[in-house]
Amino acid sequence: MKRSERLVAMTHYVLDRPRVLISLPFFSSKYDAAKSSISEDLGIINKMFQSEGIGYLETVSGAAGGVKYVPAFSKEYSEFFVGQLCERLEDPERLLPGGYLFMSDILGDPEVTRNIGRLFASAFSDKEIDVIMTVATKGIPLAYAVASYLNVPVVIARRDPKVTEGSTVSINYVSGSTRKIQTMVLTKRSLQEGSKVCIIDDFMKAGGTIMGMRSLLKEFNAEVAGIGVLAEAEDEEEERVVDDYLSLVQIMNADDRQASIEVRPGNLLSHI
Amino acid sequence: MKRSERLVAMTHYVLDRPRVLISLPFFSSKYDAAKSSISEDLGIINKMFQSEGIGYLETVSGAAGGVKYVPAFSKEYSEFFVGQLCERLEDPERLLPGGYLFMSDILGDPEVTRNIGRLFASAFSDKEIDVIMTVATKGIPLAYAVASYLNVPVVIARRDPKVTEGSTVSINYVSGSTRKIQTMVLTKRSLQEGSKVCIIDDFMKAGGTIMGMRSLLKEFNAEVAGIGVLAEAEDEEEERVVDDYLSLVQIMNADDRQASIEVRPGNLLSHI
Repeated sequence: MKRSERLVAMTHYVLDRPRVLISLPFFSSKYDAAKSSISEDLGIINKMFQSEGIGYLETVSGAAGGVKYVPAFSKEYSEFFVGQLCERLEDPERLLPGGYLFMSDILGDPEVTRNIGRLFASAFSDKEIDVIMTVATKGIPLAYAVASYLNVPVVIARRDPKVTEGSTVSINYVSGSTRKIQTMVLTKRSLQEGSKVCIIDDFMKAGGTIMGMRSLLKEFNAEVAGIGVLAEAEDEEEERVVDDYLSLVQIMNADDRQASIEVRPGNLLSHI
Repeated sequence: MKRSERLVAMTHYVLDRPRVLISLPFFSSKYDAAKSSISEDLGIINKMFQSEGIGYLETVSGAAGGVKYVPAFSKEYSEFFVGQLCERLEDPERLLPGGYLFMSDILGDPEVTRNIGRLFASAFSDKEIDVIMTVATKGIPLAYAVASYLNVPVVIARRDPKVTEGSTVSINYVSGSTRKIQTMVLTKRSLQEGSKVCIIDDFMKAGGTIMGMRSLLKEFNAEVAGIGVLAEAEDEEEERVVDDYLSLVQIMNADDRQASIEVRPGNLLSHI
């Protein structure tokens, strides 16, 4: 196989397996090339990933060593992407009664959710994360996008148990905005004790839902390793009960009667 | 930029944009290379994608022409993947009361859902599809995976309307298995009239839920362009009401009292 062909195959191979450690001997035998050639190839791939702003190859030395692709967006691209998102969201047509914002079109675009996933994965790249958790329904595509770039599984809490899930652990929590008591369940066998969990959701006002997920994780003796939300908004009634989170955008002064809204970058950008 | 570097960058660029038409002049100016060199590069990429079994570059000729990456799994890999899936599912430990099967661990693995998405995208690659539809909750990761490889948006029907969605269209349908009347809603502005829709879900017994989505699509004057389910199972009580679907696996003789189950490849493999 020529170097040019090998580079195409290897580029796909590492892109398809983020954060998986791949040994040089593996590549060497897969593509039937000397280790020194493979080493040079990986140098070229690493250089180009960085110049394209999509991450880098991390080299792990030693006998059990190799390389792994760490997806990360460049600061420039992250700022550009978040700026674009703010513009798209800052449309009074999106305002729904109660100060909520219609975002289903944005969440329904797989390219956008992929990029959001890549941004969160960049921001959480220094954390040890075993699993991504979200609660049905809107956070699910974001959770999978983040999980896909961090190469960890997803668990989904629900508001109601289902026959297709087996036995569950359930907790009650107080919704921050409506002050109603709500229930959240998680299938028992979906999460191992002691897991380090990153919580991902689409929207946060007072943070009651996030607190609900936190309580649920306590039941599994699991640890919250990070919290990421696509959009945070102020709640006029309630003070926020969660403070250690990253947000992509911040919704300010949403007023459906005045048809006015302001959307600014959230605090995630300062972590990239 | 050297050819070797350009190949890494171009490979990533096309992989990240499945089914997007990219013109030669665009590549030529982006990577500052002659059109003839770009053309050769694309030839190498196409050859390698095919030999790696991940799809091919389709060439569209003419003034508005270019290339697009069509993701597709090779028949060999598809058979291997489905075979593996059958083995993983054919575990009596997975049996839940009522002949349901625990699949959340498999659906929670982003690599598996991505591969399932790529398989469905391969099988539906000759259909004209504008949008993927599913119903909350379990089908969502599969719907996004398929959508991501077909480069179309996702719409999600729900069992109950939510304040964060705006006005909805709702229908009632009869669940095939339980014969209960159920409701399904879809946000009005999430789907355009006349769309060609591919329905994706995780599980199908009699097919009542799929029929529900069909009725909902009728309200939007939308057309069903394809139906794909991860697993189909027999329903002892009800005859199947849907017949034009593709399934990845087929669950036979699930019996939680006898702790026995059989899982075979579905009909999708014959469409690859």
